[in-house]
Amino acid sequence: MAPRSGIKRIGVLTGGGDCPGLNAVIRAVVKTGLIEHHCEAYGILDGYEGLINDRIVPLGYEDVSGILAVGGTIIGTSNTAHPFEYVREGEDPSTARDVSERCVKNFEKARLDVLVCIGGDGSLSIAHQLAQKGIPVVGVPKTIDNDLYGTDVTFGFDTAVQIVSDAVDRLHTTAMSHHRAMVIETMGRYAGWLALVGGMAGGGDVILIPEIPYGMERVCEAVEERSRLGKRFSIIVVSEGAKIKGEEEVLASTRLDEFGHVQLGGIGQVLGKLIEKKTGYDTRVTVLGHIQRGGKPTAHDRVLATRYGVAAMDAVHCGHYGTMVALQGKEVVEVPLKVVSEGIKVVDERLYEITKTFWG
Amino acid sequence: MAPRSGIKRIGVLTGGGDCPGLNAVIRAVVKTGLIEHHCEAYGILDGYEGLINDRIVPLGYEDVSGILAVGGTIIGTSNTAHPFEYVREGEDPSTARDVSERCVKNFEKARLDVLVCIGGDGSLSIAHQLAQKGIPVVGVPKTIDNDLYGTDVTFGFDTAVQIVSDAVDRLHTTAMSHHRAMVIETMGRYAGWLALVGGMAGGGDVILIPEIPYGMERVCEAVEERSRLGKRFSIIVVSEGAKIKGEEEVLASTRLDEFGHVQLGGIGQVLGKLIEKKTGYDTRVTVLGHIQRGGKPTAHDRVLATRYGVAAMDAVHCGHYGTMVALQGKEVVEVPLKVVSEGIKVVDERLYEITKTFWG
Amino acid sequence: MAPRSGIKRIGVLTGGGDCPGLNAVIRAVVKTGLIEHHCEAYGILDGYEGLINDRIVPLGYEDVSGILAVGGTIIGTSNTAHPFEYVREGEDPSTARDVSERCVKNFEKARLDVLVCIGGDGSLSIAHQLAQKGIPVVGVPKTIDNDLYGTDVTFGFDTAVQIVSDAVDRLHTTAMSHHRAMVIETMGRYAGWLALVGGMAGGGDVILIPEIPYGMERVCEAVEERSRLGKRFSIIVVSEGAKIKGEEEVLASTRLDEFGHVQLGGIGQVLGKLIEKKTGYDTRVTVLGHIQRGGKPTAHDRVLATRYGVAAMDAVHCGHYGTMVALQGKEVVEVPLKVVSEGIKVVDERLYEITKTFWG
Amino acid sequence: MAPRSGIKRIGVLTGGGDCPGLNAVIRAVVKTGLIEHHCEAYGILDGYEGLINDRIVPLGYEDVSGILAVGGTIIGTSNTAHPFEYVREGEDPSTARDVSERCVKNFEKARLDVLVCIGGDGSLSIAHQLAQKGIPVVGVPKTIDNDLYGTDVTFGFDTAVQIVSDAVDRLHTTAMSHHRAMVIETMGRYAGWLALVGGMAGGGDVILIPEIPYGMERVCEAVEERSRLGKRFSIIVVSEGAKIKGEEEVLASTRLDEFGHVQLGGIGQVLGKLIEKKTGYDTRVTVLGHIQRGGKPTAHDRVLATRYGVAAMDAVHCGHYGTMVALQGKEVVEVPLKVVSEGIKVVDERLYEITKTFWG
Repeated sequence: MAPRSGIKRIGVLTGGGDCPGLNAVIRAVVKTGLIEHHCEAYGILDGYEGLINDRIVPLGYEDVSGILAVGGTIIGTSNTAHPFEYVREGEDPSTARDVSERCVKNFEKARLDVLVCIGGDGSLSIAHQLAQKGIPVVGVPKTIDNDLYGTDVTFGFDTAVQIVSDAVDRLHTTAMSHHRAMVIETMGRYAGWLALVGGMAGGGDVILIPEIPYGMERVCEAVEERSRLGKRFSIIVVSEGAKIKGEEEVLASTRLDEFGHVQLGGIGQVLGKLIEKKTGYDTRVTVLGHIQRGGKPTAHDRVLATRYGVAAMDAVHCGHYGTMVALQGKEVVEVPLKVVSEGIKVVDERLYEITKTFWG
Repeated sequence: MAPRSGIKRIGVLTGGGDCPGLNAVIRAVVKTGLIEHHCEAYGILDGYEGLINDRIVPLGYEDVSGILAVGGTIIGTSNTAHPFEYVREGEDPSTARDVSERCVKNFEKARLDVLVCIGGDGSLSIAHQLAQKGIPVVGVPKTIDNDLYGTDVTFGFDTAVQIVSDAVDRLHTTAMSHHRAMVIETMGRYAGWLALVGGMAGGGDVILIPEIPYGMERVCEAVEERSRLGKRFSIIVVSEGAKIKGEEEVLASTRLDEFGHVQLGGIGQVLGKLIEKKTGYDTRVTVLGHIQRGGKPTAHDRVLATRYGVAAMDAVHCGHYGTMVALQGKEVVEVPLKVVSEGIKVVDERLYEITKTFWG
Repeated sequence: MAPRSGIKRIGVLTGGGDCPGLNAVIRAVVKTGLIEHHCEAYGILDGYEGLINDRIVPLGYEDVSGILAVGGTIIGTSNTAHPFEYVREGEDPSTARDVSERCVKNFEKARLDVLVCIGGDGSLSIAHQLAQKGIPVVGVPKTIDNDLYGTDVTFGFDTAVQIVSDAVDRLHTTAMSHHRAMVIETMGRYAGWLALVGGMAGGGDVILIPEIPYGMERVCEAVEERSRLGKRFSIIVVSEGAKIKGEEEVLASTRLDEFGHVQLGGIGQVLGKLIEKKTGYDTRVTVLGHIQRGGKPTAHDRVLATRYGVAAMDAVHCGHYGTMVALQGKEVVEVPLKVVSEGIKVVDERLYEITKTFWG
Repeated sequence: MAPRSGIKRIGVLTGGGDCPGLNAVIRAVVKTGLIEHHCEAYGILDGYEGLINDRIVPLGYEDVSGILAVGGTIIGTSNTAHPFEYVREGEDPSTARDVSERCVKNFEKARLDVLVCIGGDGSLSIAHQLAQKGIPVVGVPKTIDNDLYGTDVTFGFDTAVQIVSDAVDRLHTTAMSHHRAMVIETMGRYAGWLALVGGMAGGGDVILIPEIPYGMERVCEAVEERSRLGKRFSIIVVSEGAKIKGEEEVLASTRLDEFGHVQLGGIGQVLGKLIEKKTGYDTRVTVLGHIQRGGKPTAHDRVLATRYGVAAMDAVHCGHYGTMVALQGKEVVEVPLKVVSEGIKVVDERLYEITKTFWG
């Protein structure tokens, strides 16, 4: 079947941080493109960097064979390359300039008909801007943080949740054996999904997220309440972006080190010290860091990523540009690409309420 | 807060086959009951067996502590104990009799106010019948097969899918190293969810399910088509209940062995032999069996099971008897318990269509 | 450093069944060859098949990059290609002929200086015979069964043990929830290592291996003894090659099916039925099959395989042909290649004694 | 069989940090004690804390049932309770006093015949001192760091290696997708076993350990060498106790934070910043922390821990007090307990040499 839409050549890029399932989307886009829609597929290397600097390679059946279960992205990604505020690596940020015209030219030079952009809010916002410059775009939502507007869930989230849950399981045995408070810091700068769902799955006793700030008394009370119930340990799961009421200054002050760099693990470390100081409990801190975003995707994420890739090609086939594929309920649907710029999808409060039963 | 409903004593039972997440539901029911609703919880041992023979024990906070991540059910289960057609273990099936009155009496004797039944279609149908005899019942849907009517998904399914997907990953390396066809038989007697979703996640090349019978030519063609594409291996994922057009007799004949027992792994073995005979391909068969239903639940299933347990207690609290909690889209809702008897939830055809792209 | 031995071109082949860690050995051979010994490496495809039919490809740094964690073998393997009794695929076995001269010629034609053969007793015995025809050979011992003479342990075994142990863990929850006997059949035709060590790790209650036949009374007694101790379940781990005293006929008779093929899972199925018949216990059988030999190697196997590959290149470098690398205690040493033909390494009886404490 | 040694009552304690396999040793000690040696077993709670404060409980068959696969220790542990320098929790360290007599009295009061002490060098040194005060002691070596003198390997090490290896796998996909240097800090204050073996297993590109200090030039050179080879990422695995020549001051200065506490993750963070500064490479740091010591043991560790427990009871049975069980080659043997105080078992240099091939 020849594509009704006349689409022949598809460009695909992955932007933003690594995320389990990227390769599964690429595979689905390329295989569906080749087999169902009789198109050719091209990989744009290292996110927008490849579009800016014309690094575009053909992607055939063999290239995407066997990558379903493999983490990362075979076409590379970039957190920084920005077509509208481009700074060459190592250059002064004040030299930022708009190179979006170059992107349009490279897109045309490669005779691409459509750009499938797999990314988070940053990359998809750029895609939306490029769409306004005439590039036909279809977006696929990606973030381990699950805070993207317009979709119930993003691929990569389930894998990250599983990693958090496994880590909490491991910390449990140490906390129990030693009678300790264990603090575990997860990713999640603006929304607490990962701490909330990973913490629920691991049986975390206290969960702290950006959306709902608590004071230290409430946290310490929970730890001590457990102690009164005969439990001599507590697991505190905290998003990197969580706030503690009344401790904003302490938090801010720890964010810089002697090199002038932002320090890793601000909130976790501070929280650990405050709990130790205020409750006398022996406390240990673990900052999960980048292991949350790499590696083999869960079965759930592989299936979701595959469905997204297939749906993106359906959108392409139907000429539904300027859209993003999204999960709503059981269905993969299309939503306008611009929704991703409208805000952050914060956690479901009822879900958070549930966890409070468990932290008494 | 005292329960508006006046509910004081909750009985909980688990029925049917083992399923990852059972303990997570029990924990959520007991903790929510104790902490939010100020009730007492009681475990009915070994499914309906315990209700029939009055084996009911109190469940406290300590009993359910630390069980979130543990597979199985701390209160035991039974596949066979049936209040309306009871046969004592080892007795002749023709002695089956209705002992439902005994169940009602034991329920009353234990002064239970409500029965939370966690089970599949069999156990929930019984629960529905007991409800008609006056026992207030709330159901929680459970099956690794995901074929239960009324809910988008059951807990246990995600874990089983992950196990199938991991197994397919393992078989891939052997198939690739040897140039073989590998057949893998999953559970799924009436619906193909597990083979379909686990097969998609593992990158199975051909997926055969009860809902959509194929002839052997179609299967062998797919294997040979891959061969023509330069792929010298194929992975065939097949539900135990899948049918092969034109081979019904062969299938039927292999189902009995010299002891007169039904044989394990009928379809997988037969399929393997037929592929070998018809394509000349070296073929190996793996029957996953009971490892699909045991062990530690995935993070996803722990969260879903917890939400179901909390929702069941909300239903109890509101006096919504005769209902089953269910996932619809993102929400856990209540549906009439009787829907579970209305049929089997077969696979989503569009999902199946997707996989066909990948098997050429 | 130029190789003292004058070795310039190394051929590597993998023979026999798939085994986790094959790629790790290949990577170590190639990287050490290129970097330490300034050699070139060549992959002989599909085991001896490639040597017989002259399918030999160069292996560079890039080819072995990223394969450490990947199961299977990138150069393929074969169970059947035998230089001294060669039968083309699909041909009549009676046409078997000696094509070893062709192997020698192809070896010379490719200007190889040495053959590194990674294989089990079959492949290494052939390597030993080829050595006698003048091909310089170094062997690397491989088998998930761990029954190879001359080495304390083979790579692949630890991964297979972990898979068995994980499976036993999963079956435990089902056995406990249902009060069942669960039989699990592992690989191990001639030696019981996998059942013994995997069973110990998983906490199996009865372990049956080829080396030590028991009668059914002893097995049933153990199951019933556990019942008397208040344990209402038993896990029986059995090697595929285990023998049951007095049941040899039953076992033999079940080995053929209506197609005249050998049946998968003979001993497990028979044992399950016999236990059920003799104890009245509800019994379920799982045959682990090929998932035991595929997939990602454990950390332990990756390190052992890497050490073997490096040691093989050291042997090459020193001109120690006709040897096999082997683990003895903590050290990787060289042993004469011919030891592999001397017998089967059966299980350590003291290890088996230990498990008997645990099965009462 | 009555114990020849006349031993009737065995006390068991676990000391020092949590370690996967502790429960497996306890289970083996108790089961072997009960079944083979007809003794009674008692758990001393929270390490030496329980001996000092007379918290000793009976351990029966049921208590140790099902704990083989469970991380942590059912009898608790303590890092700090020291019979010869005892400081009550929260007290001033200057109040440290010798309470070893109290230990002896409590030991006698409980009518224990022998103490089985499962611990690292700290706990076993104490055990050795208590032996000199007349308590019959048998030691079992435990540490995830594997740096204990007298034994080839300690239980817990294999599990920790697996966790490090899994984490390196995850970081690989991110490093590859982004062209980054990734630094991963493992445990290992005095010996580099965990970084070395975990790094080998994960395919780390540079491995830094306490035993072999490097200057930053060497490290940066390796990163840049990989870049020249066309690899645009590097994984650097570093022990927490690794030293960087010429950077001792920077390292020392980062060890204190504004609260005056020692900071977590000193070396990893510093190394990351130095690599970034000196090579211009985008660098990310992950500090694995406590997830390395908790959770389910690997199959390998379960078997080793079980063998240690059985061997400890054999030593008890034979009256071989003042010994520690140890793995030497394939055998579990007994060594004098005092060897553990003789030093740290540093890494095998030949093993380290191997990894250098892989970091060019």
